[in-house]
Amino acid sequence: MESERLSQQLQFIVEIDKLKTVLRQSYLTNGERHENSAEHSWHLAVMAMLLGEHAEEGVDLCQVLRMLLVHDIVEIDAGDTYCYDEEADSGKADRERQAADRIFGLLPGDQADGLRELWDEYEAQITPEARFAMALDHLMPLLHNYHTEGKSWREHAITKDQVLAHNACIGDSSPRLWHFAEAMIEEGVARGYLGA
Amino acid sequence: MESERLSQQLQFIVEIDKLKTVLRQSYLTNGERHENSAEHSWHLAVMAMLLGEHAEEGVDLCQVLRMLLVHDIVEIDAGDTYCYDEEADSGKADRERQAADRIFGLLPGDQADGLRELWDEYEAQITPEARFAMALDHLMPLLHNYHTEGKSWREHAITKDQVLAHNACIGDSSPRLWHFAEAMIEEGVARGYLGA
Repeated sequence: MESERLSQQLQFIVEIDKLKTVLRQSYLTNGERHENSAEHSWHLAVMAMLLGEHAEEGVDLCQVLRMLLVHDIVEIDAGDTYCYDEEADSGKADRERQAADRIFGLLPGDQADGLRELWDEYEAQITPEARFAMALDHLMPLLHNYHTEGKSWREHAITKDQVLAHNACIGDSSPRLWHFAEAMIEEGVARGYLGA
Repeated sequence: MESERLSQQLQFIVEIDKLKTVLRQSYLTNGERHENSAEHSWHLAVMAMLLGEHAEEGVDLCQVLRMLLVHDIVEIDAGDTYCYDEEADSGKADRERQAADRIFGLLPGDQADGLRELWDEYEAQITPEARFAMALDHLMPLLHNYHTEGKSWREHAITKDQVLAHNACIGDSSPRLWHFAEAMIEEGVARGYLGA
């Protein structure tokens, strides 16, 4: 029984290797290739370790880390949905729920429930931890775009209004980070990285 | 002053994007390409969330996560050193120490010290958290080799004795995981994935 439990855990760990093949619209900051969702999740987790002081008071940073590490795993089945693609966004919730059922379901019951709760917490956006995790998940692509001269923004002809509307949630968690993000967006417009 | 601090934090976050371009000898489990150190760090962190029950009693899993998330950042300057390459291993400590000085030094002083302490803790292998982090870092490539029919082992003509000697440290942290690893290594030999 004990070895059956370990075997299920390892089967899950091997399964999620596939997240390394799920590509996002963001480019690496050197512009060479699209970023994948596994390395993105790592990057967000380190970001959380460093920017925690800009979150709401009392945020449990370990919970933020755990949430960020698992929040994209559903993309193994559901794919990455580009945040400015309204059509794809319409079916996203159903696709991701089914993916969560299957993938977390590979784990022993208690751990399947634990990861599902983390994912649900992120999606529900009620706790300060979930809001901070989402703020970072929105801030990161702004950094990637800014440092690649708007490579992904320009490819999709994204405008300032779209970026402001989509990312205003950063301010719900951290007015300081949103203040910084707004300045970066304005500078991006001035430099021609995204449409006015 | 406050915005200078945030600016240093973000400069570091952009700098570590480079870890996504550092390739390891391990292949993805689909065998298609080498794994990079950023996605590997994510994979290890999720593994720690799930296998914590197999660690020594009382291990602080959040500390393990934090250590795993930053332990490979020095490879941005120092490169990934293949664990069975004895020649490369001889200069590794110096290369990585210099890398830690430069890269962590981009951060505000208190955070530079904090990440350096995490990295030093991992390297020193004294705390149970550091031992468990290293056990996972050794177990993961075994899984990758096993699931690619020993792709990386065979490329480097690695033998069972080398694998047993290099990975016995898994048992220092978790006899249960080492018991599992030994069985996987034996099975790998039986299947011709690595030399007897």
